[in-house]
Amino acid sequence: MATTGRIPVAILGATGAVGQTFVRLLTDHPTFRVAEVAASERSAGKLYRDAVHWHEGSCPADVAELTVLPADPGAVTAPVVFSALDASVAGEVEVDFAQAGRVVLSNARNHRMEPDVPLVVPEINARHLDLLEAQRINRGWTGAIVANANCAATVAALALAPLHEAFGVRSVFATTLQAVSGAGYPGVASLDILGNVIPEIRGEEEKIQEEPGKILGHLEGDVIESAPFSVSAHANRVAVHHGHTICLSVGLDQHASAAEAVAAFEGWRGDEICFGLPSAPTRPVILRLETDRPQVMKDVDAGNGMSVVVGRVRSDPILDVRLVALGHNTVRGAAGGSILNGEIMVRRGMIAGAP
Amino acid sequence: MATTGRIPVAILGATGAVGQTFVRLLTDHPTFRVAEVAASERSAGKLYRDAVHWHEGSCPADVAELTVLPADPGAVTAPVVFSALDASVAGEVEVDFAQAGRVVLSNARNHRMEPDVPLVVPEINARHLDLLEAQRINRGWTGAIVANANCAATVAALALAPLHEAFGVRSVFATTLQAVSGAGYPGVASLDILGNVIPEIRGEEEKIQEEPGKILGHLEGDVIESAPFSVSAHANRVAVHHGHTICLSVGLDQHASAAEAVAAFEGWRGDEICFGLPSAPTRPVILRLETDRPQVMKDVDAGNGMSVVVGRVRSDPILDVRLVALGHNTVRGAAGGSILNGEIMVRRGMIAGAP
Amino acid sequence: MATTGRIPVAILGATGAVGQTFVRLLTDHPTFRVAEVAASERSAGKLYRDAVHWHEGSCPADVAELTVLPADPGAVTAPVVFSALDASVAGEVEVDFAQAGRVVLSNARNHRMEPDVPLVVPEINARHLDLLEAQRINRGWTGAIVANANCAATVAALALAPLHEAFGVRSVFATTLQAVSGAGYPGVASLDILGNVIPEIRGEEEKIQEEPGKILGHLEGDVIESAPFSVSAHANRVAVHHGHTICLSVGLDQHASAAEAVAAFEGWRGDEICFGLPSAPTRPVILRLETDRPQVMKDVDAGNGMSVVVGRVRSDPILDVRLVALGHNTVRGAAGGSILNGEIMVRRGMIAGAP
Amino acid sequence: MATTGRIPVAILGATGAVGQTFVRLLTDHPTFRVAEVAASERSAGKLYRDAVHWHEGSCPADVAELTVLPADPGAVTAPVVFSALDASVAGEVEVDFAQAGRVVLSNARNHRMEPDVPLVVPEINARHLDLLEAQRINRGWTGAIVANANCAATVAALALAPLHEAFGVRSVFATTLQAVSGAGYPGVASLDILGNVIPEIRGEEEKIQEEPGKILGHLEGDVIESAPFSVSAHANRVAVHHGHTICLSVGLDQHASAAEAVAAFEGWRGDEICFGLPSAPTRPVILRLETDRPQVMKDVDAGNGMSVVVGRVRSDPILDVRLVALGHNTVRGAAGGSILNGEIMVRRGMIAGAP
Repeated sequence: MATTGRIPVAILGATGAVGQTFVRLLTDHPTFRVAEVAASERSAGKLYRDAVHWHEGSCPADVAELTVLPADPGAVTAPVVFSALDASVAGEVEVDFAQAGRVVLSNARNHRMEPDVPLVVPEINARHLDLLEAQRINRGWTGAIVANANCAATVAALALAPLHEAFGVRSVFATTLQAVSGAGYPGVASLDILGNVIPEIRGEEEKIQEEPGKILGHLEGDVIESAPFSVSAHANRVAVHHGHTICLSVGLDQHASAAEAVAAFEGWRGDEICFGLPSAPTRPVILRLETDRPQVMKDVDAGNGMSVVVGRVRSDPILDVRLVALGHNTVRGAAGGSILNGEIMVRRGMIAGAP
Repeated sequence: MATTGRIPVAILGATGAVGQTFVRLLTDHPTFRVAEVAASERSAGKLYRDAVHWHEGSCPADVAELTVLPADPGAVTAPVVFSALDASVAGEVEVDFAQAGRVVLSNARNHRMEPDVPLVVPEINARHLDLLEAQRINRGWTGAIVANANCAATVAALALAPLHEAFGVRSVFATTLQAVSGAGYPGVASLDILGNVIPEIRGEEEKIQEEPGKILGHLEGDVIESAPFSVSAHANRVAVHHGHTICLSVGLDQHASAAEAVAAFEGWRGDEICFGLPSAPTRPVILRLETDRPQVMKDVDAGNGMSVVVGRVRSDPILDVRLVALGHNTVRGAAGGSILNGEIMVRRGMIAGAP
Repeated sequence: MATTGRIPVAILGATGAVGQTFVRLLTDHPTFRVAEVAASERSAGKLYRDAVHWHEGSCPADVAELTVLPADPGAVTAPVVFSALDASVAGEVEVDFAQAGRVVLSNARNHRMEPDVPLVVPEINARHLDLLEAQRINRGWTGAIVANANCAATVAALALAPLHEAFGVRSVFATTLQAVSGAGYPGVASLDILGNVIPEIRGEEEKIQEEPGKILGHLEGDVIESAPFSVSAHANRVAVHHGHTICLSVGLDQHASAAEAVAAFEGWRGDEICFGLPSAPTRPVILRLETDRPQVMKDVDAGNGMSVVVGRVRSDPILDVRLVALGHNTVRGAAGGSILNGEIMVRRGMIAGAP
Repeated sequence: MATTGRIPVAILGATGAVGQTFVRLLTDHPTFRVAEVAASERSAGKLYRDAVHWHEGSCPADVAELTVLPADPGAVTAPVVFSALDASVAGEVEVDFAQAGRVVLSNARNHRMEPDVPLVVPEINARHLDLLEAQRINRGWTGAIVANANCAATVAALALAPLHEAFGVRSVFATTLQAVSGAGYPGVASLDILGNVIPEIRGEEEKIQEEPGKILGHLEGDVIESAPFSVSAHANRVAVHHGHTICLSVGLDQHASAAEAVAAFEGWRGDEICFGLPSAPTRPVILRLETDRPQVMKDVDAGNGMSVVVGRVRSDPILDVRLVALGHNTVRGAAGGSILNGEIMVRRGMIAGAP
């Protein structure tokens, strides 16, 4: 694939699990080209292929030969950076890049809930990117920080969006069964998870409780008003590679039968501004009618990992409807979500085309 | 162990997974002695050791040499029978045995929700056995059918009991992560569950929604009034051998803080009439305070598999409290529960001692 | 894809695990078109989609609508049949089809070791198909039976071929770690294999000991002289979906160092008559130099599941060389191998083109 | 259990996986009492319960309250130390303790193959402890270093011992399927091993090739002459918690049929000097006759994890006999083996009784 005409991007935290997914998904990307990789001091200066413990398939040849840079806007020159940085450093480093005029598409949790940072799942809220104007004024920078949501929160938000748009969501009980790749690499020890369930993922429940409301909220002037629903979350780790399954019981403003909920899912395509973006699946939410779907093994790669698959839509004995949602945590829920955010910014003219 | 002085019992459906657990748990039992084993026509006439595909450890030597009988009160002579029969045949066969004057301790679902059949978790509702008087009058038999609950419903009922007694339960959202042994043997195919989650267990959610209310209900005269709460259940299969994990969000009649809920769990010992029964654990519900417990791998055998382990007791953003409960599905949730029901009936004089 | 111009084929045993793999691999095949599906009496007469419990992804739409036929040459009309029949019936049914003039490409074990049945891995021994002339004379039929080898034997044969051609193989110690899909569906119960190793696969060791010698043998006149080496095999089942790993210690006629063995693997492309066949991978044997490869997770799909991946080539303390080989048991080791046999027969003019 | 009368011991490396197993196995031990725990500088000074991430069940209460000492003979006072130290530090630290007059029972690999260090599996070679006399003269210390073997080498040595004693072992092909606990904690990442096989364990094959010969060797004067056989090993990691399975093909000096090999296993009890030691199983090697045993799930805890279970004893097509052996890698293959070495030294008067 020709390198001219593609926008050069850098990946911060490129050696970790999410960083590798960025590299993999951006290989042969029609709009972006991985021009630089950056990581911690320990890796800086090495060739990427020597610094990385590559997990899936083979490391793309051209990126393998890049020299790892320090995660510093003085060393990295690309105008657009995808951040797969660990939360322990992402907060500051991302601010540095934004202050240096770069567009930061962040997968880290640090800035997600700040009032002037758009938290974007573009099929739901591409319009929230208008908030960047206020962000630039507030912060006094020419760059930008755009966040994507926590992996489980992203899956939940997409599963709730069709219901929220049709009936208004009022309350949500969410129990997750999350894949080990959500913990990065080496992440979860095999001794801890083989034949086991771990009923805790530190900090995860709070994100599932907070982020979907912001994503499904309305931008009023330069303020995002969160959608007025509450979420109660239980997060569990299970012995699955990739794919977060979420069981949802949902209370609605306007009651819907199971059939009405099914119709809402079937009709939903998300904001048409996303149609045809390179990473946008034809259907952001795919409905399965079989009684035993979605299943990690069969559905996690739907839409190249960018679709959320919803099934078992049925009425709830206490609230209105129940369903099960599944999404690919390292694709839609992490690197792929960030890349889609970059793509919509290009389409909206918020990222300049290649020189 | 001497065989005299122990009450001879038969196991119906003795070759299946639950039947084997009965055999294993009744070996060296101080009160009961496995005198007979019965199974389908296909197995009848064989030695038990030839008819069974034994799973855990070694088949007890004395039972191995028994000849398998047909599951028929004409062939089986024991006054007490434990039924591990498949639901497709249990309904009729258990009635036959009760009509023949036998006490049937059933693990099958068929008669559980019938108004005159006690559904017993003895630490909660040993008093429901008084319903047998009405059962005998209604049915015109001298025998009895006593049911234990579905495996997940049993775990849920024990986890809810301390809260219900202290504060009154009003609504419950329950999502389960259930072990493969719940499906019997061969049960779940490895191709279906390795690296996967299956978000459906046929018929399971209905049982989790109905049975805890009956168990926690009150016996008024000869009627059990179900506890007045609703349950919404999601049932999932995960790649775990034994142990059902259940995430519970609970609404209470009288609000309780997390600390008050913790105190309720810590103080609860269940009906004292069960104290000291051979299979009764010292604590029917064990509270763990670590933030990542209960875990299948660490907690499933607590109380020899007869305790339910509860953890992560915390407040719920929508209802009152949240928690995670874990119980051994083939011990407390099946054969062990049935045996405990037999033990309490002996103590209450409802099963005669050995001749 | 246009259906004209493609050769109509039938799949016998189409509803089982291997049968499904045939359906999947033949969808959009450039040379063959699935015109008929056949299975046991129990399935005959149903639509394929109703008769099959489909495992991977979605069942191809056109095959889904076919009516399942009985596995009988009176009902099935296609001139070429791929047999995924169970060994309990394959022996007779395949003979019936050959007698009815059909080319039978069989995945069953029944006829493999018969002297006039070619056992074909075409990159190694496409020339063995010349044996069909003798087969037709012996059997008095105009059809043919062509077998592909046992899944583990196929992987072993491909891993040994470069060594045998370069140095002559004299003795082989082979220990396998085999995937559960090798046992079909439902196959291995999850209760048996989760967290376990089963050190026995009925009948497998004999096949691994016998079949590679025939495959690597020479056709002299109308007799295949087996390659003169002995194999000692241990077969184990492990908790892996697809992919048989085999550890091999190999004695050679002419000693080779590890480096010489590596060179033999690097240079080997197999019989050039296979180059460019639709299912033929560019490299039938791929050599990895990393010290921890091949790995199921990373290498099983190499060459679309048609390549065997070899690694850890090193000297053996007792014999000459040691190595680890990995192949996809349901693709190269079953349906894919059979299809490649069909393709080479078309190229060699042994199967007539489409009418 | 009374603490008087038991010999006080220290555990070096007490916080790691093997160290924890030492703590667990020494709780309520009739001869030894854990008086001190030592670990790296990072842990020293903390309470053991705060320094350890405890894995199985609950940490024994009395050890939990011990203060972790530095692994230094100036800080540790016990006359007997069990070493679970990492190989990166064990070499030097163990020498320090021996020079300070302590008996070091080491699980580390560092000194195993040194000519004057006995490598002991006491049922096989308790007599090798006589080598300590030479060790003390050579080293000029009053202490001692006694090693137990690598986990897989221990299992192999016990499985070979009955054959070696009866027929003489001449050559061995060994392929292992090893549990993740062999890599310590956190050890193998779940992302690396779920649904996978890793055909490499760094440094393991060399140990399996060298150590059994020393264990089965003869002490002549002050020299151990290794048994004159060669071993070729393949080591694999599989998704199993505990239990190393080893497939063995064995060449013998004097040919034995499968039946003769079976008889050798059935008759073998090991050196009678071990009979009745607290950790010595009644049968150090248990023979199973079923065709699908030993299995991790069913056999790993045989003899409280101290027995090696052997099965599938059959003739080998190239050598003499084949078999499968299974042993508990962290019990017999690590801490339990070390403790048994301590017990035999007490019995032989090489460790003084409690003051």
